[in-house]
Amino acid sequence: MPIDLNADLGEGFGQYTIGNDHELLKVVSSANIACGFHAGDYRTIPETIKQAQTNGVAIGAHPGFPDLQGFGRRAMNLDHDEIYDLILYQLGAFYSFAKVQNERIQHVKPHGALYNLANQEKAVAEVISQAVYDFDPNIKLYGLSKSYLVQAGENVGLDVKKEAFADRTYTDEGLLMPRTEKQAVKGETEDILKQAFMIVQQQQVISASGKVIELEADTICLHGDTLNAVNHAKAVREAFENAGIHVSSFQ
Amino acid sequence: MPIDLNADLGEGFGQYTIGNDHELLKVVSSANIACGFHAGDYRTIPETIKQAQTNGVAIGAHPGFPDLQGFGRRAMNLDHDEIYDLILYQLGAFYSFAKVQNERIQHVKPHGALYNLANQEKAVAEVISQAVYDFDPNIKLYGLSKSYLVQAGENVGLDVKKEAFADRTYTDEGLLMPRTEKQAVKGETEDILKQAFMIVQQQQVISASGKVIELEADTICLHGDTLNAVNHAKAVREAFENAGIHVSSFQ
Amino acid sequence: MPIDLNADLGEGFGQYTIGNDHELLKVVSSANIACGFHAGDYRTIPETIKQAQTNGVAIGAHPGFPDLQGFGRRAMNLDHDEIYDLILYQLGAFYSFAKVQNERIQHVKPHGALYNLANQEKAVAEVISQAVYDFDPNIKLYGLSKSYLVQAGENVGLDVKKEAFADRTYTDEGLLMPRTEKQAVKGETEDILKQAFMIVQQQQVISASGKVIELEADTICLHGDTLNAVNHAKAVREAFENAGIHVSSFQ
Amino acid sequence: MPIDLNADLGEGFGQYTIGNDHELLKVVSSANIACGFHAGDYRTIPETIKQAQTNGVAIGAHPGFPDLQGFGRRAMNLDHDEIYDLILYQLGAFYSFAKVQNERIQHVKPHGALYNLANQEKAVAEVISQAVYDFDPNIKLYGLSKSYLVQAGENVGLDVKKEAFADRTYTDEGLLMPRTEKQAVKGETEDILKQAFMIVQQQQVISASGKVIELEADTICLHGDTLNAVNHAKAVREAFENAGIHVSSFQ
Repeated sequence: MPIDLNADLGEGFGQYTIGNDHELLKVVSSANIACGFHAGDYRTIPETIKQAQTNGVAIGAHPGFPDLQGFGRRAMNLDHDEIYDLILYQLGAFYSFAKVQNERIQHVKPHGALYNLANQEKAVAEVISQAVYDFDPNIKLYGLSKSYLVQAGENVGLDVKKEAFADRTYTDEGLLMPRTEKQAVKGETEDILKQAFMIVQQQQVISASGKVIELEADTICLHGDTLNAVNHAKAVREAFENAGIHVSSFQ
Repeated sequence: MPIDLNADLGEGFGQYTIGNDHELLKVVSSANIACGFHAGDYRTIPETIKQAQTNGVAIGAHPGFPDLQGFGRRAMNLDHDEIYDLILYQLGAFYSFAKVQNERIQHVKPHGALYNLANQEKAVAEVISQAVYDFDPNIKLYGLSKSYLVQAGENVGLDVKKEAFADRTYTDEGLLMPRTEKQAVKGETEDILKQAFMIVQQQQVISASGKVIELEADTICLHGDTLNAVNHAKAVREAFENAGIHVSSFQ
Repeated sequence: MPIDLNADLGEGFGQYTIGNDHELLKVVSSANIACGFHAGDYRTIPETIKQAQTNGVAIGAHPGFPDLQGFGRRAMNLDHDEIYDLILYQLGAFYSFAKVQNERIQHVKPHGALYNLANQEKAVAEVISQAVYDFDPNIKLYGLSKSYLVQAGENVGLDVKKEAFADRTYTDEGLLMPRTEKQAVKGETEDILKQAFMIVQQQQVISASGKVIELEADTICLHGDTLNAVNHAKAVREAFENAGIHVSSFQ
Repeated sequence: MPIDLNADLGEGFGQYTIGNDHELLKVVSSANIACGFHAGDYRTIPETIKQAQTNGVAIGAHPGFPDLQGFGRRAMNLDHDEIYDLILYQLGAFYSFAKVQNERIQHVKPHGALYNLANQEKAVAEVISQAVYDFDPNIKLYGLSKSYLVQAGENVGLDVKKEAFADRTYTDEGLLMPRTEKQAVKGETEDILKQAFMIVQQQQVISASGKVIELEADTICLHGDTLNAVNHAKAVREAFENAGIHVSSFQ
C-alpha cells in the first residue's frame, strides 16, 4: 500500500523566503501551499504550483490565520462563520492559480494554529469541512488522525486523508505535543525514521510517555523549515524507497 | 437602449465602514465589490454579494493595489506579471464567495490607481485583460471608454463594457481629470445630471476646457463614499427613470 | 474633588474613520490615542494630538495588539517579552509626534483585548508597567480599578490612575462584562448617568447581579464609536457640570 | 582619516530573516536598522540594537516606505507632509528601544526607494531633514554624496555624512544606477575593492560609461543580503585594515 508524503511549501513573502522548497519538492508527493494569510503571497503561489508540477507533486491549499508576523502559529479567537469565510477566501485565491495552470487542487490542509484548533474543536472542524465541501466536494481534506477534523470532514462527505507526523512527538491522547514543549519536535534522524516506519507498517506511534497509540495514516507530514528538517525528510524518503514502500499522492 | 449604473461597494475593513452600501444598492444595477487588497476583507465580500442578490444587483470583482492605507489610490510600480498575479489572486478569492452563493461574476473592474494605469498603459491593460480571460472568458471587463483597457480587453476576446462617469470631469483627451485636481469631482447635482444625460443620449461629454468629447458608454459609474455622492447617485437614477431610460445590468 | 473623563480617539486608518473625535474632544479631559497597531496610523496620531491641544485635552498613548482587522479586540497569545517590546514600539512612535508638537504624554492606557489581559493577568500587567516605566517614569498609567494593572503599575513606581466605566456592566468580581455578553454595554442614558454619579460620589458600582462593588476611580472612560455613545458622553459631562463635579485631566 | 562602513541590518520580520547580521556586525562600524515599515518589527529592533552594542557598532534608524511586500524598494507616491510623519513615526519607535538600552541614535538613513527619492527630489529631502531635526538635531543624517538630501540636511542644520557605495555602479551624474539595470550591483570582489579604495583615497568613482566622478565620502555602504555581498563586505574591511585605513563610526 502506498503512502503519501506531504510538506508545507511556498511560505515566503515578498523578498523573504523560508525553508528549502527546491529540495523538499524532490522528497514529497503532495505540497501544502501557503495562501497569503500566514505566509505566501500572489507571487509565491503560482511559482510554487509551477515547481510542484515540474516535480510531479500534487498540490493542496494550506490556509491559515491572517497573521504574517506570527506565521499562523498563534491561536486567534475568531467566530466560526469568520473561519468559514477565511477558508473560502484563501481557497478561492489558490484555485485561481491552479486553474490558469490547468492543475487540480488535490487537497486542503489548514495551517499551524488553525490546524490544531480544527483537530481539537468540533465546531471549527465542522465549518472548515463545510467550506471545503461547499467550494468543491471533490477536494480531499487532510486532518490529524483521530481528530475532530477527520470526523467532521467524513460527516460532510469529503474524502478525508488521515495524517501522521514523523518528526513530532505525540501525547497520550494521540495529539501533537505543542511546539512550546521542548520535546515537541524530534531531532534525531533515527527516531524520525523509526516513527515513520511504525506509522506505515504498524499504524502506531509511541507517545512521549511511552504509550502505544493506534492510528491510521494515509499521509505523513515532513518539514523543511530548517536544514536538519530537510535532511530528515530526505532520509525518510530514501529509507521508504529502500524498504519498498511506495510514495505516492492521491491523484 | 438600457444603461447600466455601477458603483464601488463592500469597501469596509474589519470594524471600518465607508460609503453607504445600503442606499447605493437601491440605485445601481451592477456592484464593483472590493476584494481585500485596497479595501474589503473575507467578511465584507460574502456580505456584500448577499446584499447585492437581495437587491437584484449584478456583481463584479473590483481588484486593486495591495495598499489598504492608501485605499488603492496611490500608483504602485509593479512588474506586469506581478499585476497579472495580483488580479488572479483577488478574482479567485472573490469567485469563491460567488460560487457558494450560487452567483455568477458579471464583470471585473480594476480599482483606483490600477484602473487609471490600466486605461493609460497598454501593457498593464493587456496583462489585466489576459488574467480575466484566463480565469474565465465569460466575465465582462469594464474599462474607461476610449482607453487601452477597452482595446486590450477586446483584443483578447473579452466582452468589454465601456464606462463613463457622471460626476467626474474629463480632460480634452477623454481621460479622467486626476483626483489631485480641484475640479476632478463634480459637486453640483445639476452638472452631474447634465453629464449623465449627455452620455446616454448623445454619447458625448464636455471636457474641462469646453471641448466636446465623443464617447460610447454601456455603463455609468456613480459614487457613494460621501453623503452628497449618494444623493447624486439617487438623483441620476430617478431622473433616468422619469425620462424613460431603462437601467439594467448585463445579466 | 475633580474627576477625569477619558475616551479612545484617533482610531481611523488611511481613508477610514471611526467614532466622532470632533464631538468627543469637547467632552473629555484626556484622550487615549491609537498608536498604529489596532487602529490609527502616522497621519492620525499627529492630527489627533493637534486637535487635543486645541481643545485643551491631555494626551495619552493607547497601544494595542497588532490586529487592525480585529480592532485590537481579539486576544492574541504573545510572549510576555513580546508585549514589552510591543508597548515600547507604539509608545516611542507616539512620543515622536508629541515631542515635535511640544506636548507631554500624560498617560498610557492599553487598548481592548490587551487592556483586559493586563487587568487580569499579573505577568502581562508587570511587563506593560515595566515598559512604560523604562521609557519614562513620569508617564501615568491608566488601569481598571481593582486590577493587576493597577497593582503592577504601583509596584514598579508609576503614578497609576484608577479607571471606571460609566457605560459598561460590571461582574461581581468588579471586572468588565465581556463584550460578547449582551448586557456588556449599557444603552440607556439614565443607567449610564446613574453609574457615573455612583462612581464619583460613592466610589461604588452595582454589578449585573445587583451586588454593590466598592471601587475607587480617578478617571471615567466614555465611548464615542456610535452616535448613541457620543450622546451619552455629552450627557455625563453636562450632568457633572450641572452637579458641580469638576472635570479635569491630571496635568 | 578614518572611514565609516555602514550596512542595512535587522531586516527580518516575524519568522523571516534576511541577510547575515551576525557576520556583517563584525565588518561595519555603523548599522542602519529597519524600523518596521519596509522590514523589521518590534522584536528585531531591540535584538539588533543589542547585537550592535555587543559588537561596538553605532546604531542608526533606517526608515522606509510602508511596504513590507516590496521591501521598501517600490517608489510610492506620498504627499510630502505624509513623508514627514512617516519618518517621525519610525524614528520614535526606534528611539524607544535605543532609550531603554541606554544607546544613542547616531544617525538616520532612509531606505531603498525613499533614499533614492530623497536624493533626487528636493522637497522630499527637505521634509526628511526637517523631521530628523525636529525630533533631535544631534542625530546625523546619511545622504548620497552630491544629493539633495545632503544639501537639505546641511541647510536645516544637521551634521550630514556623505555616503558612497563600493558595490553599486554610478551614473555620469554621480547617482546610483537603478537596481532594474543589469550592471547596477557589482559582482566581482576586485571591482568592489577598487571602487572602495578610489572612494577613500581619491574621493572619486568611475561611472558606468567610464567618466571620473569627484565625490566626497564619509561613509561607505556595504550589503549583506546575499552570501556574496557578505564576502565582499568582509574583503573591503580586511583590505582597508591591511592598508592602514582606519574604520570607525562617528561616535
